[in-house]
Amino acid sequence: MSQYQNDLILRMINGEKTERYPVWLMRQAGRILPEYRAVRASLSGFKELVETPERAAEVTIQPVDLLGVDAAIIFSDILVVPEAMGLPYQMIEAKGPWFENTIKSEADVSMISADIDVADRLGYVIDAIKVTKKELNGRVPLIGFCGAPWTIFCYMTEGQGSKTFSKPKRLLFQDPQMAHKVLDMITDVTIKYLKLQIEAGADIVQIFDSWSGILGPKEYSEFGTKYVRRICDAITEVPVTVFAKGAYYARKELGELSCQTIGLDWNMDIAESRALVGPNKTLQGNLDPCVLYADFKTIEEKTKNLLNSFGNQRHIANLGHGVYPDTDPEKVKCFIETVKGFATN
Amino acid sequence: MSQYQNDLILRMINGEKTERYPVWLMRQAGRILPEYRAVRASLSGFKELVETPERAAEVTIQPVDLLGVDAAIIFSDILVVPEAMGLPYQMIEAKGPWFENTIKSEADVSMISADIDVADRLGYVIDAIKVTKKELNGRVPLIGFCGAPWTIFCYMTEGQGSKTFSKPKRLLFQDPQMAHKVLDMITDVTIKYLKLQIEAGADIVQIFDSWSGILGPKEYSEFGTKYVRRICDAITEVPVTVFAKGAYYARKELGELSCQTIGLDWNMDIAESRALVGPNKTLQGNLDPCVLYADFKTIEEKTKNLLNSFGNQRHIANLGHGVYPDTDPEKVKCFIETVKGFATN
Repeated sequence: MSQYQNDLILRMINGEKTERYPVWLMRQAGRILPEYRAVRASLSGFKELVETPERAAEVTIQPVDLLGVDAAIIFSDILVVPEAMGLPYQMIEAKGPWFENTIKSEADVSMISADIDVADRLGYVIDAIKVTKKELNGRVPLIGFCGAPWTIFCYMTEGQGSKTFSKPKRLLFQDPQMAHKVLDMITDVTIKYLKLQIEAGADIVQIFDSWSGILGPKEYSEFGTKYVRRICDAITEVPVTVFAKGAYYARKELGELSCQTIGLDWNMDIAESRALVGPNKTLQGNLDPCVLYADFKTIEEKTKNLLNSFGNQRHIANLGHGVYPDTDPEKVKCFIETVKGFATN
Repeated sequence: MSQYQNDLILRMINGEKTERYPVWLMRQAGRILPEYRAVRASLSGFKELVETPERAAEVTIQPVDLLGVDAAIIFSDILVVPEAMGLPYQMIEAKGPWFENTIKSEADVSMISADIDVADRLGYVIDAIKVTKKELNGRVPLIGFCGAPWTIFCYMTEGQGSKTFSKPKRLLFQDPQMAHKVLDMITDVTIKYLKLQIEAGADIVQIFDSWSGILGPKEYSEFGTKYVRRICDAITEVPVTVFAKGAYYARKELGELSCQTIGLDWNMDIAESRALVGPNKTLQGNLDPCVLYADFKTIEEKTKNLLNSFGNQRHIANLGHGVYPDTDPEKVKCFIETVKGFATN
């Protein structure tokens, strides 16, 4: 007997035959829900929400109650790791993250440390997972997550979002040794962090490589996949999902990692991705989030097209990117209900 | 006898056997050159430079004199087209383009018109081409350009740069008929505009689809390639280059267009791209612009690796994106000189 009322996503990842495809959405806990905005408005800002376990647990569970997804994902931010390592950030409304201090050269590496008490510095995330698990009370599994080392390196060096991320890329070409040193430090902390998430109850962990797509194939292999591989090899307790957005050229290489699931962005063709990744992994994705701006009929039709393309293989239905904040929750429900009503055979 | 002292790029595009690969850089006329910054500082802003034919010609020719490239590209902006159609823009320092009025729904389509006197409204570009041709005096060919209809539609609807361009994408899914109507209008104006550029002396024209990568394969085929195809079919006077950044999934489809050259971004593998596009087109690109942040030895090595990957087929050496503004011109010269010193056989 499973410890979950709904363990569909775990069965799918295990390669079992399931009655339908499991479904959840990246950024399902967030601004699309008025109930989230109400919680958020009662606090001083995004970071207070991330750092307050009871409230983070509350918004984590909202989409399970309100949307009926098959998994919860802990409400947090990938940037808690660089902060824990010594680079604090602010989340500026309508602009995004901003780091006052960034790594510009070898000399700045002394600003960060991998020799930290992760359980202490990121205790608020661990506590949020514990509270969430208790309150979920076995309804659905909980996904923990982290940023991939390359993506964290991007923020540590660029200090904010960017179209080109030319600062981290400059460092790769100017001082690859330093880049490897920092990536290694991030990897060490990330492994400890994920293990603590799992101890606290995370049933699956997802590695988000949001900026993989700005590297070319050779550079991503050297500075990206290398460190994702090390994390995958270290995490043996629960299934691991790797989502390397834009790294279409790396699908074959990612398919060889010791992870269970590969996330696909909306540009990646399902059949082609399956051929590259092989039959032994679960694929996750990849409806264009903008499809949810269409009318209900179109959403249903495009969702069914996606599900048909899965061909009864191992798939988790999701979007190909986080749900956009101005999406109507009823449209999100339409996507979820369409998946739930579609039987595999 | 060629009308040019250096017609290497035209011979390569024609499929002739050449002694070496031709080379130029996207955004070669611009902020990397102190000589450009001096001209720019003497004027009120970017737009005055674009709109003053003598000065636009001057900065167009600078990289021919200073860097030794095998082609000039007219200094202008893809956004002159939406402006000519009825949506003026500003270029805000350090932020990028900004449109006061944007198309939000069908009702706003009345703000733009395809029934305009392009020769009058964009006379300053046409004049800049004429002045440039005269001053180049046959040294190298001149490239004209435009934005692809999808990319122009992105700016007409989003009104500025964006990470997701969710506004134009929303319209594609909410009102595809309106999107097609606007794309059709942009295409009509663009064809007239390119023909005027060619009459004025442009020897090659390049279509920049900067935001193709935010669409998935099906949407790009329907809303992107369709209109690029119409332009390619209409322009028979000179060779056409199509650069659809990020549209890796469309390379086969783009290879079937009636254009002569396909531009590749730095993520696109050369051998794979050649296999998808076929042997009968010239490929252009695709060194990662960040390689030019490396030391001279690394630049030379990575440039030679790229040239070796060309395998003596039809290629124009270029970057995989516009050169970044903080690149040392000496590093750009190193790239150019390495290409020039590399013999084909």
